[in-house]
This record gives sequence, structure tokens and C-alpha cells, in this order.
Amino acid sequence: MYKILSQFLTSIAYAMLCTTLFAPERNLFFEAENNYPITIGVEVEKQVESFSSSFEKIDVYTTKHCGNMLVLDGAIQLTQWDNAAYHEMIAHVPLLNHPHPKRVLIIGGGDGGTLSEVLKHQDVAKVTLCEIDGEVIRVSQKYFPEFSKSFSDPRIRAVIDDGAAFIQQYHDYFDIIIVDASDPEGPACVLYSEEFYTDIFNALTADGIVVAQGESPFFHRDLIKEWHIRNKKLFKHAAYYYALVPTYPSGVIGFMYASKSFAPDHHKFLDSKQLPENLHYYTPELHDASFILPAFINSIFK
Amino acid sequence: MYKILSQFLTSIAYAMLCTTLFAPERNLFFEAENNYPITIGVEVEKQVESFSSSFEKIDVYTTKHCGNMLVLDGAIQLTQWDNAAYHEMIAHVPLLNHPHPKRVLIIGGGDGGTLSEVLKHQDVAKVTLCEIDGEVIRVSQKYFPEFSKSFSDPRIRAVIDDGAAFIQQYHDYFDIIIVDASDPEGPACVLYSEEFYTDIFNALTADGIVVAQGESPFFHRDLIKEWHIRNKKLFKHAAYYYALVPTYPSGVIGFMYASKSFAPDHHKFLDSKQLPENLHYYTPELHDASFILPAFINSIFK
Repeated sequence: MYKILSQFLTSIAYAMLCTTLFAPERNLFFEAENNYPITIGVEVEKQVESFSSSFEKIDVYTTKHCGNMLVLDGAIQLTQWDNAAYHEMIAHVPLLNHPHPKRVLIIGGGDGGTLSEVLKHQDVAKVTLCEIDGEVIRVSQKYFPEFSKSFSDPRIRAVIDDGAAFIQQYHDYFDIIIVDASDPEGPACVLYSEEFYTDIFNALTADGIVVAQGESPFFHRDLIKEWHIRNKKLFKHAAYYYALVPTYPSGVIGFMYASKSFAPDHHKFLDSKQLPENLHYYTPELHDASFILPAFINSIFK
Repeated sequence: MYKILSQFLTSIAYAMLCTTLFAPERNLFFEAENNYPITIGVEVEKQVESFSSSFEKIDVYTTKHCGNMLVLDGAIQLTQWDNAAYHEMIAHVPLLNHPHPKRVLIIGGGDGGTLSEVLKHQDVAKVTLCEIDGEVIRVSQKYFPEFSKSFSDPRIRAVIDDGAAFIQQYHDYFDIIIVDASDPEGPACVLYSEEFYTDIFNALTADGIVVAQGESPFFHRDLIKEWHIRNKKLFKHAAYYYALVPTYPSGVIGFMYASKSFAPDHHKFLDSKQLPENLHYYTPELHDASFILPAFINSIFK
């Protein structure tokens, strides 16, 4: 009786082991942990980092087709394959919309991707990068070496601090502020608040521009609407634009643009400037076009 | 000894049973069957149809957040939640680019979504829809009732036939041809061939326009490049534009535009026309903007 039972259980266990471990390639997929109607799965080779910092869970994967991939609290932050759209559009849109962007602040952006794009601008004299989580910088320098050299540029000062507290020291100082934050859960939550944007307004010069990671227009309509209403009250110009990023939820990421002086889509100073080199996504024509939104996104702002 | 072994195996089997059957909501996800670096998963409630027609495998799911979803040969064709972008952009871009689109041919499009958008144009006198698979029409009328009434419009003639053969009967006849095809695998393969486009050219009037489902600019660069080169040889104008569709691979779908007379992005006739009603995605400004491509897509065409 024991023999039959043990044989029976052995065969069940073996069948289930095969199903779980060997059969489905699904085991090789990382899937973003979120509650959106659609999930993104990326085929991975290996999990090369997995630990919790003081602020968030940090995972790094090598993937089959997308290069290295950074994941914070279960959400894909960037892959080597498709990060250019995000980093170019969050950096070059404000920088090319401003005639002389000398002082730039990046809040978040510890991976160095936005920083690398900002440093392509010769008129930028000083970049301050304020990242709350030093572990993001450390891990990114290891797995995204294409961005790591930007941290040794003489124009950059990296600060490990809470961006919301850090910005309160400044008044009428930065020409451009880029909020390169993760989702409004966990440590980045405060970076979506009204108080933070009042501080941003105060830290900007009289013709300053702020651009922020602006979530998915498919999944965060209420957040984007409220945020835009607040920005419209504070700033002369408030607008929204977008870029295609297949590994982000819904395949598209928006950006909030607000400025004290310069309208979002004119980059009229570009004629007297040099276009940054090695662009994969940004073009001057697309700069304007990316503010022209599908009707269902426009309706958020009405 | 048997007792210990059986207890051990029982506990393993139980643990694995729990993991496999109860823990992951993953069982509720449909994932598109393709070989792209990124997979799209949609949370489903129930599979309500699953059978093979003479041409392809047809599945319909009810989903948790995206309404009903049609899947052909493992690839998501449409969901009730996000189909508007595709159907509006494949229909209104050519129709609003033409001063008097009277005769329209839709090849494929058995779900009726493109047809519904085409019929919003009062100047359209006759629409021929040529779908190879009658089962797609039957199933879609059941699960996408919002499109089904378009099949009873007096202006429409639905034909169950191979579009590549059907089009050879026509010469200098259609003002607009819309190729609303699935991927270049299975029955739609022929709809990407040079011969087919020569037949399309011949079937179009002297100022005719063709627009076709143009795959993902992230995943089908070679196909798009070759196709565009051919179209440029045949037609006066050849261009590419795109729309955001989260349930399609990479979250974006392109369209091939080719025309004997009218440039792609001017819709200069719009002033004298009425804009179709109930638009969720298309706007006249977006019409132009959707032809302005990110640098990495532009580079396909260089």
C-alpha cells in the first residue's frame, strides 16, 4: 500500500516538477507587478541583483533581447533596449525650449540616463542630480555603464537626498528642473504633491521650465488631470507630451511640462543651437508633434 | 521508510499543487503568442469561443478590464477597450485626405470596426468589404455588437473571398483601399506582397489612396523598409504613420500610406467636410502629427 502510494505521489510530483520547472518558457519572463489591465512581460536570462535598499526593492535582470533591465518595487524603470525615448524626451524638450539653460536640477534619475542626455548640451554649466537612493546609482553604474561616465563630468554634482526637502533650499536658481521619478507609490509619492510643485516654482528662475515623468495617459487619467489643473494655476504654461516606450505600462509614457515663460512646443531657440548628437528618438519636428495628443488624452485636460 | 518517503512526497506534491493551482493570478492572463522580446498579457475572465476555421484559430475572451477580446492565431486583434485608435486612424486618415471618397474597399476587417468608421463619412457611397474568413464576421457580430449594425448599412457589400484574388477584377475603380489585415503569417501573408500592391495600384482611381495595417516599428523594421521601398516606386506618395494601441505588440501600430495624388498629411479638404462624430482618438491636428516619426522610425526609411 505504501509502495503504491509512494509511486503514485512520485509520479504526480515528477509531472508537476516538469510542468513547473521545464515546460513553460513563462518562467523566463519577468512581469511587471502592477494592477493595470495589461501586463508587460520581458524575456529574461538571469536575475543579477535582488535586494532591498532603505527605500525600495531593487532588481536587475539580464534579458534576452532588451539588454540589462532595472526594476524598482516590481516596476520596470529602464532597459538598455528602449530607454532612449524616455531619456531624450525628458531632457531635450525642456533644454531646447530654453534659450540659455545654464543650471539644471534632476530629481531622481539615479540611473544616469537623463543626466547623460542633459550633459550633451554645451550651454549647460552645472547639473545637480538629487537621488534619494544611493543604491540606484551604484547598481546602475554597474549594469548601465553607458551612463556611468556622465557622473564623472566636471559639471555634475550628485547629492543623495530627498528631492522634496533638497529643493526647499533654492530660490530663483534653476533654469530647468527635471523630475525623473518613479511611480507615485513608495519613495516618489511626495514628488507628485502640490507642495512640491510650489517649491519647484520657487526654485526656478523667472523663465524656468519643469518637466516631470507623467505616467500613462491610459492608466492614470485622474492623477494627470489633477496635476495639470494645479500646474495651470501655478505656471504660465502647462502641457503634456508623450513618448513610445514598449516596456512601460501601455507602451507609452507621458511628461508634464510647466513653464513660467516659454510655451512648450516652439523650441524657437533651436536655430541658434546645436542639436545634441547621437539621438535615437528626439527630432525637432517630433518635439512639437509629441504635444499633439489623441482625442482621449486631450479629454483629460478639458 | 515508505512512510517517511510518502509523507515527504505528499508534502512536496501539496506545496506544488498550491503553487500551481491557487497562488498565481497568472492563470487568468491571456498572453499573445508571438516571438517578440516583450509579451502583452491581458487579464481575462473567460474564454467564450475557441475553434479553428478553415483559415485560422479563432478565440474570443471576456476580459476583466478590456471588454471582449478577439484573438486570431494567438495574436490579439482587438479589444473593446482600445480598438478605437486603430480603427479611426486606418479609416479617417485616408478618407479625410481625399476630396470625394465615394468607393471604398476594405480588405480584411471582418470584425466591422474599420467599416463602422468608414460609414461615418457621408460622401462614401459604397463600401465593399472583402474578408477571407466568414467566421471572423460571424463571431465579431456576436461579441462586438457595437460594430455589427454597420453590416446592415445599405451602402455596404460584404464578400467572403481572398482579397488578393478579389482585387484583380477591378481597374481604376476604388477611391480608397484599406488593407485591414492581420500579421504577415497565415492567411494574410499574400497581402504584403509586391504583386498585391501592383493590383491595388491598378484597382485605385487616378487620385486613389491605400492605407494598410503596418505592423510595429519596433519589431518589423525590415518588413516595413522593404514594403516602403516598393510603395515609393509604385506611388507618387508613400509614408508611414502610427497610433497607440496598448494591446498590440510594443503598444504601437504603424500604417502604410500610399497615394497616386494626395500627400499624406494635409487633409486640406477637411474645411469643406464634416468631421466624423464620436471620435475617441483622431483629431485633424493628430492626423498630421502621426506622420511625424521618432528618429529611430525615420531611420527605417533612409
